[in-house]
This record gives sequence, structure tokens and C-alpha cells, in this order.
Amino acid sequence: MIDKLQAIVGDANVMTGADRARWMKEWTGYFPSDPIAVVRPGSTEEVAAIVKLANETGTPVVPVSGNTGLAGGTQANGAIALSLDRMNRIREIRPAARTAIVEAGVILSDLHAAAEAQGLIFPLTFGAKGSAMIGGALSTNAGGSNVLRYGNTRDLVLGVEAVLPTGEIVNLMSELHKDNSGYNLKHLLIGAEGTLGIITGAVLKLAPKPQAYATAMVAVPSLDQALVLLNRLQEATGGAVEAFEYMPRNYVEAHMGLNPANRAPFDAMHDINIMVEVGATAARDVEPGPDGTVPIAAHLEQTLADMFEEGLLLDAVVAQNQAQRQAMWERREAAAEVVLGAGKPVSNNDIAVPLDKVSVFLDRMGARLQSLDPEAEPILVAHLGDGNVHYAVWLSKEDPALKDAVTEAVEDEVLRLGGSFSAEHGIGQGKLSSMARRKDKVALAAMRAIKQALDPKGILNPGKVLPPA
Amino acid sequence: MIDKLQAIVGDANVMTGADRARWMKEWTGYFPSDPIAVVRPGSTEEVAAIVKLANETGTPVVPVSGNTGLAGGTQANGAIALSLDRMNRIREIRPAARTAIVEAGVILSDLHAAAEAQGLIFPLTFGAKGSAMIGGALSTNAGGSNVLRYGNTRDLVLGVEAVLPTGEIVNLMSELHKDNSGYNLKHLLIGAEGTLGIITGAVLKLAPKPQAYATAMVAVPSLDQALVLLNRLQEATGGAVEAFEYMPRNYVEAHMGLNPANRAPFDAMHDINIMVEVGATAARDVEPGPDGTVPIAAHLEQTLADMFEEGLLLDAVVAQNQAQRQAMWERREAAAEVVLGAGKPVSNNDIAVPLDKVSVFLDRMGARLQSLDPEAEPILVAHLGDGNVHYAVWLSKEDPALKDAVTEAVEDEVLRLGGSFSAEHGIGQGKLSSMARRKDKVALAAMRAIKQALDPKGILNPGKVLPPA
Repeated sequence: MIDKLQAIVGDANVMTGADRARWMKEWTGYFPSDPIAVVRPGSTEEVAAIVKLANETGTPVVPVSGNTGLAGGTQANGAIALSLDRMNRIREIRPAARTAIVEAGVILSDLHAAAEAQGLIFPLTFGAKGSAMIGGALSTNAGGSNVLRYGNTRDLVLGVEAVLPTGEIVNLMSELHKDNSGYNLKHLLIGAEGTLGIITGAVLKLAPKPQAYATAMVAVPSLDQALVLLNRLQEATGGAVEAFEYMPRNYVEAHMGLNPANRAPFDAMHDINIMVEVGATAARDVEPGPDGTVPIAAHLEQTLADMFEEGLLLDAVVAQNQAQRQAMWERREAAAEVVLGAGKPVSNNDIAVPLDKVSVFLDRMGARLQSLDPEAEPILVAHLGDGNVHYAVWLSKEDPALKDAVTEAVEDEVLRLGGSFSAEHGIGQGKLSSMARRKDKVALAAMRAIKQALDPKGILNPGKVLPPA
Repeated sequence: MIDKLQAIVGDANVMTGADRARWMKEWTGYFPSDPIAVVRPGSTEEVAAIVKLANETGTPVVPVSGNTGLAGGTQANGAIALSLDRMNRIREIRPAARTAIVEAGVILSDLHAAAEAQGLIFPLTFGAKGSAMIGGALSTNAGGSNVLRYGNTRDLVLGVEAVLPTGEIVNLMSELHKDNSGYNLKHLLIGAEGTLGIITGAVLKLAPKPQAYATAMVAVPSLDQALVLLNRLQEATGGAVEAFEYMPRNYVEAHMGLNPANRAPFDAMHDINIMVEVGATAARDVEPGPDGTVPIAAHLEQTLADMFEEGLLLDAVVAQNQAQRQAMWERREAAAEVVLGAGKPVSNNDIAVPLDKVSVFLDRMGARLQSLDPEAEPILVAHLGDGNVHYAVWLSKEDPALKDAVTEAVEDEVLRLGGSFSAEHGIGQGKLSSMARRKDKVALAAMRAIKQALDPKGILNPGKVLPPA
């Protein structure tokens, strides 16, 4: 097997023994890998050859890109770990068409930089952007902090290229906004976490770079008032809100505890802290008015001032320069460090509810946690603008039964509110039991039938997404 | 069989013999139907019972909603025609969440009216909106004239409910903007034209009703200049262009010929006529300025005036009232009557190319048509803003070989330009040969495997979408 893999990608690109180290541990620490070998193909054709070989020999293949997932989707025990990191070319950026054609191993922040050099943005962004890769983002349909304005990853993808479990290459690299020619395999591959095919390339949508941003931290007395703020801002700006992120007091405090340089958002501490950002894409929103204020910032400041006067806000700070804006973003994007950095046992729950139900959800969970683990402490952060809560809980002890009980309680409350037990992190292995318990049974059976049809030997990323029947 | 169907839906809702008449012919006249019976279920459970019966007996079932398709997707010879017209309830409109929960038989314009009553819109719109139904719109992933701003049908769908070929009901009626829990069956069902499941209900996204529109007819010297107009308007309004529709001179003339009340857009006739509409959703775009002009209209008028001065426009007329706006839309939405109303043999081609390639495509096709049929005349209309051209051709004679040759020539040129042979009308039966010739072979095989996995007996809408292997 190793010989054959070396023949495909060259000796230097098949790592065995200690050379696999970089791919054996991942970020969360929960899902260490022990792959047969790590193989690093340099082209789609090499990926195809590897998968073909795996199919013939019945060897599992687990695609790995940035390895920043939180659900164990890349654990590769006894499998070939197929790393896409060498396929990191941005093949083309077409500014007029606002598209980027990229390989799966491109690091998200590298694409950000390449797009910005053309006055454009690739809107997808989240904390792990410096190491997460496009292939993983597509395979998990990653969300992040700009979904409110630009949609999830799948909304930013025009076309994909992938290697199917047979080792055949499927070319769906359309650049078109309208293309109805049979079943939508693109959307089937996106979010399938590498179990139906290995995405090797993509045509991505770029957006005009907002010519100005206005960013603020706002303290509000309740989450309901936060939604009033969101709706008022959307109305004032014509839907220009890009991020609307909720951080409770203990999150802010934990962030400050990570590093003495981390500052509090306000002079006083508040329970409900919102980071809001609006982006101006229309010319009339960036030409400074008579007083020198950029209109998009004026809209934000006026809305905040009005609401403060009405007693709907407790405090607000508008970023006055890029460094202040950056500090606001860094606080939000440190979520994983905040939650895991404390070294406490954690129950991690990435859920979504209708956005007017977030406060109900939090209240009910608070009560349920009390009975499950009186010392438990929720340490959450939320993309409040789309109802997505990263509901982590610090537990009093490392106890699988307790973790499971907390997760079940979260699922109960989420589903009672019409929500989803899996919002943006995917299923991987971490949510297999939730899938088994909570997913519509007919849907689950249809998914299994599709997996069986496309991957009858079950070689692609086995044991992920679909719980055993 | 008839008895059993009557037992499910009641005698009055099983039509046989002459009672089937309403469902036997459809709009284009190319695909008359001769179903065993027309069955009109009143609920998802009844749909499920019908499909279960069909599955057990191996009887084909063809779902029919508004029957306004152009590709023969609802022809039901020797099959049960399952009409969704009785399932026409708008179950709920939730203004705060901006969602509508509807049954598949809701007529598109009825949903438009219900949304508008709440100050919202359901953005999907096209000529057949007065009889087309939601089920068909989703099953074909319909496009239309607002795709530029709001996306295709699939971009407007949060959740679906469907009956699978086994007769089981799959409930994916999520209202969430983030829900990553396994393979995306929603997107697989949307656009599958009823071959993988019968969509019975949906959760749809509504959008804020633009508080003002500004609509104009513009004559430009070239399609390249039309794109300059589009980009300038997008920049001036921050992406508020809702429609950007191209009608050549012979289209305008044919429309005038349909009815003496149909007027020319300008005093003089021009070769390239564009209908453009911008919609204002931000408060600052609708409050009249000192001179009484609504800002969104001022942006449009200013952009047109600037370009006229630069010699980039030949003529422009801005609608001064709702009646003038309506007349502009009616001209555009009369496309099907314009093309088919002349009673000439027609080759119909719904294609898309990158939008900066539309003029190249038209030039090349003009030359090729000359050699295929010197008397042929293209009679096209285009959603120019997304590169989607309805490239109809009036032919000199009714001749299947000629039609096929024209279609092949269109496909050649479209694919050379990186386009799609099927943009928004779907495959049905009309484009089966194009699918066989042009679709990526690996993709086609994967689609067949999925169809086989979900519908092993092939009972759901057989003979559509997938050409014989």
C-alpha cells in the first residue's frame, strides 16, 4: 500500500511513523488520529488515483485540510489521511466576474488577502481563518460571523470539483448563477464532510469590499432589546449589518483573563455585550458629510444615540480606528481559546434556534443545568443575528454521562423551540448520537441510501456524519 | 386502482375520462398528457398514501402543480397525475421572522398578495405567476426576473416537506438559517423535478417590501454599455438593482403586434432595450428630498443623466407612476406569448453564459443560424443581469432535425463560453438529449445512482431529468 501511494505522490509526500505527527493531534484534543499514512497529493488527478487505489483495496480514506473542526470529522484511525495542504493554489481571481477559482487546500486568510488585493472580499470568516482551508469550510458548510449578510459557505459557492468514492473526478466548476441541469450534486457534496466525495477545487463568489465599516460594542439590558437594535440598524442601513455577536459578561471576563493586554469593552462591566458591525458598499454611504463623518458611521451612531435616549441601551463604544475595530473582533474570535483555555471540562453545543427564541432557550437551559450539575457554568457566545448559539458549558467534572445528559437537555430545549441541534460545526463524530436520536428518521434513511449508492464500500471518511443503522 | 385512489382522496377527487381534460393539455402544446387518472389529494398524508399505493403496484406517479413549465416535466402518459392544486393553503405568515409556511399548491401570485398584506414580498416572480404553484417553482428551482437581487428559488427556501418514492414523509421544515445536520436533502429535492420526491410544503423566506421602486426603459448602443449601466447603478445604490432585462428590437415589435394597446418604449425604435428596476429598502432611500424626488429615483435618474451626457445611452424613460411601471413589466412578462403567439415553428433554448459573454454568444449564434436556416430569426429576451438568455428562434419550417441542429449549435457555443445548456427552465423531457450529450458523465452516473437508491422501482416522474443510460 505504502509503495503504491509513493508511486502516486512521490516518496516525500507519504508520511509514516513519526512524520505523521503534525496530523495526529488536532485542535480540540478530543480526536487524536493514528492513520496508516498521511498522503499529500499535489493535484486532483493524484487525489483520484489515491481514492481509486483505496476503493480497490477497501482502505478507508479521510480527507484533512486545515484540521480546525470541532466535531472530530477528520479523525483517521487505521485510514489513509489524505491531506490537501499542498493543493493550495488560487488558480484565478476574476475581479469583473467577482469569482475566485481555488484549490481545496487554500488557507482561508490567504484567500481573504488575495481578494482584498483586488478590492473584493471573500465574506466567509471565523476564528480559525489563519489555518482553516477551503476544502474543510465547504465540506462542513462553515458558518461564521458574516452569515447574516452573506449567507453560509454554500451560499458563496458557484461550483465545485470533487473526487467521488470510485476515484472518478466530477467537474461541476460552473461560474454561473443559473444552472439547472439535473440533481444538485454541488449542494450534496457541500456539508457532507468528505463522506460522499473529496472536494478538490471550487469556484467561489466574491463580494465588493465594503468601502467603510462602522463597528461598535453595545451593552443592552436584555436580548429582546438587542433584537430591536438589530432591526433598527437593518432598517437605517438597508440591510448592511455584517456581524451581530453576543458575548455575556463571563465570556468577557474569561477573555480578559487570557492575557493582561485584553481590555474590557466598557468602563463598567455589563451582562449583555453585543459587537455590531455595518459595512458600506454604496458610494453614498462612504462620502464624508459636512461634519466629516462617513455616512455609514453616522447611521450607526445616530441609531445608538436614539436608542440610548429611549433607555434601550446601557452603553455603547464605536471603534474610532482600525486598531479599536481589530480589538473588538479579536475578543469575539478568541471564542475557542476562551472556552477551552480555562482547562475545565467542557460540554460544547453548537445549536440554532429562531432568533427571537434565544433568550427563552438560555433561560430554560439555565434552570436545567442547575439540576444536572449545580456548579456548571455556561460560557457561551452567539451569532445572535442568525440565532446560532455556541452553548458551551464548563462542567464541575470530566464525566461522559454528565456531558451526555447536558447535550440531551440542550437538544430537548432546542427542538422544542424549533431549532437545530447542529448549526454550523457539522456532525463529524461528536454529534453522531444526536443524529441518531434527533434527526428525522426518514431523512436519515435517505442519507444512508445515498451514501450506500455512491460509496458502497464505505471507504470515504467512514464513521462520520451517519450513525450506525 | 381507481377504487383504491378514491378510497384515499374521495370519489370527487379522482378524475377519469373527460374529467381529466384540464390536465391533459399544457401551455406549450408540445407535451399533451394521457394519465390513468388525475388524483387531487388534500393533504400530505393523502399524497403519501397515493405514492405508497403506486410504489406497491409499480404505477408511475407524475406530480403536477401549475403546469406552466416549458420542458415537459409534467407529461403523465399512463401514469397517475397527482395534482397538488387542492393543497393551496398558506399555513402561516410570520412577519417578524420573515417566513411563510405554505403548501405546494399555493399559486405564486396568491403568495405575493399575502406577503404584501404584511408589508413583505416573496421575491420570486416570472410571467406565469398567476397560475404557477410553489411546488413546481421549487421542483424546477425556478429563476425569473429578480434573481439578480434575491437569488434563485432554492435561495429563498428554508425548509421543505416531501413524500419520498416509498410513500414516507420527510420533514425538513426548518425555519433556521443555520442547520448543518447531515446531507442537504432540501437542495437535492429542489430542482429534482419531482423525480426523487413530491414536495408538499415549504418554509419560504420573505423580504422587506421595497418602500419605493424606480423603473426605466433604457436604450443603449451595445450590450457592453448595458453592463456599464448595470455596474454603475449597483455602485450608486449599493446593490439595489432588482431587474435588468434585455429585449431586442424585434421582441418589442412582436409585442406591439400582439395587441394594439401595446406601446413602443421610446419615440424612436432602438436595437437594444433594457428594462431596469431598482428597489429601495433603506429608509434614507425613500424620504423625498427638498425637490420632492425620492432618493432611489434620484440615483437612477442621475446615473442615466450622467451616462447620457457621456454618450453611453441612446434614450431613457423613467416610469412616472405605477401604470407606466406596470406597462414596462407587462412587456417583459409577455415573453412566452411573444415567442409562441406568432404561430411560427420555434426552437426554444434557455441558456446561461457568464454575463460578459452574452454579446459574443449572440454574435456567434447569428452566424451559425445563417448556415443552418437562412430564414431563421432569433426572438430572444434575456435576464441580462445574470447572463440568462431565453434564446428562442423562429424557424422557417417545423422540422425536428433542424430544431435539433439549432439546439446542438446553441449548446456548442454555450459550453465553449463556460455556460450552461439549462439555466432556469429545467430538463423535463425537452432537454433529455442535451443532458445525455453535454452533462459531465460522472455527474450523470452519480445522479442515476441516487435516483436508483431512493426510487428503485422508478415510479416517480419516470422519463424526466435523467436520459436513459
